[in-house]
Amino acid sequence: MSVQAISWTASGAVRVLDQRALPEAEIERELESGEAVADAIRQLQVRGAPLIGIAAAMGLVAGTRELRAAPRSAFLERVTQLVDLLGAARPTAVNLRWALDRMARVAAATPGDGSDLWERLHAEATAIWEEDRAMCRRIGEHGLPLVADGANVLTHCNAGALATGGIGTALAPVYLAHEQGRKVHVYVDETRPVLQGARLTAWELMHAGVPCTLITDGAAGALMRQAKVDVVLVGADRICANGDFANKIGTYGLAVLARHHGVPFYCAAPWSTVDATLGDGDLIPIEQRAPEEVTTLAGRPTAPPGVTALNPAFDVTPARYVTGYVTDRGLVQPPFVASPP
Amino acid sequence: MSVQAISWTASGAVRVLDQRALPEAEIERELESGEAVADAIRQLQVRGAPLIGIAAAMGLVAGTRELRAAPRSAFLERVTQLVDLLGAARPTAVNLRWALDRMARVAAATPGDGSDLWERLHAEATAIWEEDRAMCRRIGEHGLPLVADGANVLTHCNAGALATGGIGTALAPVYLAHEQGRKVHVYVDETRPVLQGARLTAWELMHAGVPCTLITDGAAGALMRQAKVDVVLVGADRICANGDFANKIGTYGLAVLARHHGVPFYCAAPWSTVDATLGDGDLIPIEQRAPEEVTTLAGRPTAPPGVTALNPAFDVTPARYVTGYVTDRGLVQPPFVASPP
Repeated sequence: MSVQAISWTASGAVRVLDQRALPEAEIERELESGEAVADAIRQLQVRGAPLIGIAAAMGLVAGTRELRAAPRSAFLERVTQLVDLLGAARPTAVNLRWALDRMARVAAATPGDGSDLWERLHAEATAIWEEDRAMCRRIGEHGLPLVADGANVLTHCNAGALATGGIGTALAPVYLAHEQGRKVHVYVDETRPVLQGARLTAWELMHAGVPCTLITDGAAGALMRQAKVDVVLVGADRICANGDFANKIGTYGLAVLARHHGVPFYCAAPWSTVDATLGDGDLIPIEQRAPEEVTTLAGRPTAPPGVTALNPAFDVTPARYVTGYVTDRGLVQPPFVASPP
Repeated sequence: MSVQAISWTASGAVRVLDQRALPEAEIERELESGEAVADAIRQLQVRGAPLIGIAAAMGLVAGTRELRAAPRSAFLERVTQLVDLLGAARPTAVNLRWALDRMARVAAATPGDGSDLWERLHAEATAIWEEDRAMCRRIGEHGLPLVADGANVLTHCNAGALATGGIGTALAPVYLAHEQGRKVHVYVDETRPVLQGARLTAWELMHAGVPCTLITDGAAGALMRQAKVDVVLVGADRICANGDFANKIGTYGLAVLARHHGVPFYCAAPWSTVDATLGDGDLIPIEQRAPEEVTTLAGRPTAPPGVTALNPAFDVTPARYVTGYVTDRGLVQPPFVASPP
């Protein structure tokens, strides 16, 4: 069974598995306020494009609990503040903005005072989460034909159960193939600097009993040259109208290697990851994170004091490198246009 | 000024800068025996293809100090033992075998007893070191035209002063360009798993005052796509007759990316790195190192307990990806045939 990354507490706060602590410790945190959720997103305790959308929606609920007795206007004012706060926690993933916009629209459209609005938002956040679980499953079903019996899959970063409310995006076809008794093995890029592959993907695959092998990011090329990789499956933080997409730094290099070696390269993501307002990948804002993520590991320096380091969290892979997009709406090709879900 | 990685002690032992301790601590170790030198090579306290050749030759001298009063046969027997021991310390770099063969030949060809042989071996190891310093300089001169004023160079692992007895191989043109007042900037791949880029290359470039920026290995593709890299310069651990070469894992992926983006990609190495007995790269033995290098960092786990990991220390880059080979004999092209130096 795959792991569960997020849930409600009985009182409407947000319970998350602290992903910074994995795999050394399994720590559950109860995030009691919108601020706590924003901090958790900013610090990568909660990460993965779909999951931060869910977490933000749930954070809006946690952060308005004390306004259940408030008049409508005060409640809506607080919603606006929290939407701004949570929306600014990370800039690249479109799901965050998408989930918050949806919550704000629902709040505005719901009649009544604090109590009515809060109940409605709680239901809406739960719906976003449930839809995500269902979306993961559909992504898995649409991607299942890509994971043949005996397949060696290569993945980057974490686009699994820990990145979503369900069984993941890039890993969803892997989990379903495994569930159906297919032999499947995953090469896991460790994914520097934050090591989401080593810390999270390897952990959740082992947890689910899926055979996997950890490699350094630099080893992927040699494996492809030795014909040891049958398919590359990665997630996405934002997909543009033309199919260009942003994902964890290193994804673009993998895409070039895959094309060079004739290895199919798929991007798996819920349809909510599509940002049809952006024509191409040059328009995606790329988050530059602290250089300390590159120059230290677990607080210990890995580079000389005072060294200059660049730490773009994402890169953009142009659509021409992508064999196909595995979404909850099917295995699709660009152009992508906005349409009602 | 670039750093000095190796030297003699007054008594004929080997003094090295412990490269496992950098950049946190600058620790000099005095290696008193052949065994101590073999251990230092095995544990990567001393690394870099040219440097381990020098260290092995000097280790043969350190390890025969107590046989200076011994008869010829006992001395030569000990030389044979040490050649086997030191030669087995690491399998991929050809320089190790090359230097030891040269020392063994000289010992066999020198008349006299322990004292005569030892003095001759001391002189020969010193000659190997001095030749390496001169070779580095010549590599720098031949490679200087590749580093234009304002150039952004990308390098992988450490093929600098810390990998040689002199100013390095891949970094030699950089040091000379800097010496001549050219503006040059180096993007340094951190080079997982052992982080020679972060720990050693960044350190020695900063030590010499050469501007550099540390990046994760996965960021190189995005930089090339943004046209921020003018030339890639890497070292080599073994070069085959047809030009295929082994270098630190990740080099092959860089070569593919460089070709894909039209970025010139050069392999810089002393001629002693050429192993003309090997027709192509498939024949190079690739060292598989302990998985713990991938699953831990500085003793701290970065992956779940019990995870399977692959840790090939090197990969092979086929000659067709290489723009040219910067050697002490000039900027050359394969095929390479054995010839007297």
